[in-house]
Amino acid sequence: MKNEKITSRDVDFGKWYTDVVKAAHLADYSSVKGCIIFEPNGYALWEKMQQVLDKMFKETGHCNVYLPLLIPETLLAKESELVAGFAPEVAWVTKGGDKELEERLCIRPTSETLFSDYYHTVVKSYRDLPLKYNQWCSVLRWEKETRPFLRSREFLWQEGHTVHETREEAEAETKQMLAIYERFFKEYLAIPAITGRKTEKEKFAGAEYTLTVEALMYNGIALQSATSHYFGDKFARAYDISFKDRNNQQAYCYQTSWGSSTRMIGGLIMVHSDDNGLVLPPKIAPTQVVLIPIGDSEAVIDATHEIADMLQKNDISIKIDDSNKSPGFKFAEAEVNGIPLRIEIGPRDLDNHKVTVVRRDTREKASYDYDEKLVTVVRDLLEKMQQDMYEKALARRNSLTFEAHTLEEVETIMNKHPGFIKAMWCGDLACEMKMKEIRGTKSRCILEEKAIDDHCVVCGKKAKHLVMWGIQY
Amino acid sequence: MKNEKITSRDVDFGKWYTDVVKAAHLADYSSVKGCIIFEPNGYALWEKMQQVLDKMFKETGHCNVYLPLLIPETLLAKESELVAGFAPEVAWVTKGGDKELEERLCIRPTSETLFSDYYHTVVKSYRDLPLKYNQWCSVLRWEKETRPFLRSREFLWQEGHTVHETREEAEAETKQMLAIYERFFKEYLAIPAITGRKTEKEKFAGAEYTLTVEALMYNGIALQSATSHYFGDKFARAYDISFKDRNNQQAYCYQTSWGSSTRMIGGLIMVHSDDNGLVLPPKIAPTQVVLIPIGDSEAVIDATHEIADMLQKNDISIKIDDSNKSPGFKFAEAEVNGIPLRIEIGPRDLDNHKVTVVRRDTREKASYDYDEKLVTVVRDLLEKMQQDMYEKALARRNSLTFEAHTLEEVETIMNKHPGFIKAMWCGDLACEMKMKEIRGTKSRCILEEKAIDDHCVVCGKKAKHLVMWGIQY
Repeated sequence: MKNEKITSRDVDFGKWYTDVVKAAHLADYSSVKGCIIFEPNGYALWEKMQQVLDKMFKETGHCNVYLPLLIPETLLAKESELVAGFAPEVAWVTKGGDKELEERLCIRPTSETLFSDYYHTVVKSYRDLPLKYNQWCSVLRWEKETRPFLRSREFLWQEGHTVHETREEAEAETKQMLAIYERFFKEYLAIPAITGRKTEKEKFAGAEYTLTVEALMYNGIALQSATSHYFGDKFARAYDISFKDRNNQQAYCYQTSWGSSTRMIGGLIMVHSDDNGLVLPPKIAPTQVVLIPIGDSEAVIDATHEIADMLQKNDISIKIDDSNKSPGFKFAEAEVNGIPLRIEIGPRDLDNHKVTVVRRDTREKASYDYDEKLVTVVRDLLEKMQQDMYEKALARRNSLTFEAHTLEEVETIMNKHPGFIKAMWCGDLACEMKMKEIRGTKSRCILEEKAIDDHCVVCGKKAKHLVMWGIQY
Repeated sequence: MKNEKITSRDVDFGKWYTDVVKAAHLADYSSVKGCIIFEPNGYALWEKMQQVLDKMFKETGHCNVYLPLLIPETLLAKESELVAGFAPEVAWVTKGGDKELEERLCIRPTSETLFSDYYHTVVKSYRDLPLKYNQWCSVLRWEKETRPFLRSREFLWQEGHTVHETREEAEAETKQMLAIYERFFKEYLAIPAITGRKTEKEKFAGAEYTLTVEALMYNGIALQSATSHYFGDKFARAYDISFKDRNNQQAYCYQTSWGSSTRMIGGLIMVHSDDNGLVLPPKIAPTQVVLIPIGDSEAVIDATHEIADMLQKNDISIKIDDSNKSPGFKFAEAEVNGIPLRIEIGPRDLDNHKVTVVRRDTREKASYDYDEKLVTVVRDLLEKMQQDMYEKALARRNSLTFEAHTLEEVETIMNKHPGFIKAMWCGDLACEMKMKEIRGTKSRCILEEKAIDDHCVVCGKKAKHLVMWGIQY
């Protein structure tokens, strides 16, 4: 039985996506143009992501801080590439209370400038280094269209900003954070992402280079999902972040920044969910198991609570749905909300010392003994589901990853079904722009793999890089 | 030995406060006027507060959400008292990208309007109620002066917003949240707060009434520390939040809101800290124990790690300071940062199977056996310290709480040393304003205690309420 509120994924992917977002109570549009409301289920997912990532950041020696929301125009203007990249899309505060401000302030689109200004005041000696800070906050970019989690004027994210004594240390940090994101995508979101370096055209304004995590959605569209930037000493020179080094010489610092956002929720939906709603990998699901008692006999209620206790004691997050709604309604609701496992506890099953367990991803239903081994059964099912979801996403990605050796091949592939395309590139901007003419195909990242050809897929001249191409959100 | 970076608390309390904030790396001023930087130690305290409060909120059935940062002017204007209360102190966004906006947007000073607008769209039936939402975010108020944590243009807070079917349920929620704050202050912050209802003059703009948690700082100045508001159906009428009730009639909802902020960090400092820096109650300290190895002999290093493991396994948060600094420097640093216990692990002590433990609050130093019982010793010391800090704060508060029966008595008390003053009040605004002439004395809250007199302390007419008065931050 299909959920009537949700358009089929294969009929209209865009409509399916917003239907799932609404039906699973993840987000809603607000009266504030371009801004969305993160509803309880959507925000709970973000909290879970924060929890996991925050732990990974702290384990690698990072601290959280909080810097101001507003950036004075002169401060923003110090790094010319950054200001050129962001100025067209910031919101400006020009009035405070009743007074016109002497200098207008922008709402942070990102905080390199503020961190650099702060590091300028606190970094004096090599003994102060490294400083490895991160902040969880919202940022604002004056976007024209709104798609919940994928594109909105305001979104939630984390932005790490670090400052180091040496180039090597800063580059190692840039790589390390990319690896953390990749691991998070693989182990928690069950998303097989690809990673690599952005081209000059696609890198972050002001960065020496940008490393990126790119994921492929079910429909073959690519999503830039997290990035890690190496700045060299560019910001240090613009904001004068210098220190007495080990030889008592004044030297500039090396910096990085790295970020991931609520956009990951969009990726999670578009990789795993189906026509019945959200499907969540167990390791990121705020609620892993929902217990649904059928009827209200004492035996059923007691068993429900006993199972709940058993699971909670084993760190499995649960919810009991003992509302007045019908069992069918509850099943559908658990399904649309993407709760990985549903345990139905009914009087007839109980008479046979059984309960029914249903997996959300495959919708497989099976009967299990109601005894102390049920915890192991549940844990195994959650692990299996996490693994299966990753394998399924990987198979899908692989089936939509192609190789192309000529522009015609790119065109044929993209016209048939969008996906990732591996193709060689000479390094010229002109060829990158030429690719873009084919349904907006852009370079996703430069891969560190063996060349598949010796000539550029566009111009036929000597190729420099193997690039993964795709159409992006 | 006194910390040289810190002005004595009894010499200049204001200077002492900012010295502690800076020396303990809690916050720093930023280049953005009126905004502060929450540095790692300050933000870690906020994270710990969030963790505890968030758990309390969730245990009482609240969910987290996130609503937009920006509020369109027309939406703000719908509730006239609220807009009158906040309009003079909001920041206005008038430009997005290169374009002048058709309608200006303010940065949220609080989110009653946005929540009400959202509830208007989602509440249809009594079956949808209650909705008990909370959000963690930053808010902005265009303040003129800046004092880290106490007053700044931007600060971090949580704001709960709930909507209910009945008046009774909403009022019970208002009371429940006040009780949660009071418990948090007592059990975690070790602050004996008083609670009660605000007068009409001091209540939140737009509320039917406001309940408040008021704390007394070491210097006798009062700090409004958390508030819980009951709105009746005022916002429901202004924003049309109505629903089909159990009799199938259209009815208005009843609402509450309640909030606490990074201002609590200021309170924590001003109640407990001393001339050597921060003093933190163990239950809110991000790091409870610092282990300082003396020298680098294998025995010392091994013992340090063994003790660290032992404590961590028992959920005691620790930090090892094995940096190159001298032991004396490390001791001073642990002290200024307010880490509750410091364990010194030295070679001579170890030869006698001993370690030295120093309490931050009393600076008592004692030698304990280095064996498996050390965990119990540490746990007991932490508990004792938590208790002692509360008792000490309570004694201080009591010694600065007075009763007054005439205006002259109020004047004499406040001129000698500010504090809390219990005095009767007739309920007239004129008398409240008259009190204010005495060094800015304001009503903190109406107490639910037995009357101490039958006449108003100001006008001598029949008294209605026993009020706690104080000079506020």
